[in-house]
Amino acid sequence: MDRIPILRLGDYLIVTIQVDMHDRLAMSLQDDLTDRIVKDGAKGVLIDISALDVVDSFIGRMISNTAAMATVLDAQTVVVGMQPSVAITLVELGLTLNGVRTALNIEKGMALLQQRRR
Amino acid sequence: MDRIPILRLGDYLIVTIQVDMHDRLAMSLQDDLTDRIVKDGAKGVLIDISALDVVDSFIGRMISNTAAMATVLDAQTVVVGMQPSVAITLVELGLTLNGVRTALNIEKGMALLQQRRR
Repeated sequence: MDRIPILRLGDYLIVTIQVDMHDRLAMSLQDDLTDRIVKDGAKGVLIDISALDVVDSFIGRMISNTAAMATVLDAQTVVVGMQPSVAITLVELGLTLNGVRTALNIEKGMALLQQRRR
Repeated sequence: MDRIPILRLGDYLIVTIQVDMHDRLAMSLQDDLTDRIVKDGAKGVLIDISALDVVDSFIGRMISNTAAMATVLDAQTVVVGMQPSVAITLVELGLTLNGVRTALNIEKGMALLQQRRR
């Protein structure tokens, strides 16, 4: 299993991260995601991190970078499903997810994306 | 990471399988999924297996059992994103996914669920 599946739903792409990220996997996710944004003409990307108990600086940076790439391709990124403990750690470590909006769950994330497109 | 996240979208639950399944993970997925079907009043379950290169008899049985549990709780199950090589292996191994509908991708799976509810 060397790639993370990307699901398309209407104008949005959904990615659920549930495995430990490493360099190569993060790179292949960014490759796949940017490809799909262009190919599918996606307007938004939803990244679900509800399976992650820990978000370290590597994953934080990977998410920020992915969001920056999506923005350049005219797609908004929303991170959904963050666990309370992850939010605490992020702030304590001083990691801000630059350029990334967050929402409690995938439905609220989609509503946020739809709202921003209007 | 000892559980697979379940995403809710309207009346449907989405599960993407992207890690190697083992007994305990399969059990916790079935527990979580049946819980969520009842709690969210879900009418359908979409299981995305596009990340799986191999579906062996264990995963096949796990999917069939999960679908059977969902059916008892009045929710339909659709498996989406099966790779061509997986379809070939399933037939060659004589593994039929009993009681499970399939669709090419999540959008078609959702359309199928909506159609069956009418």
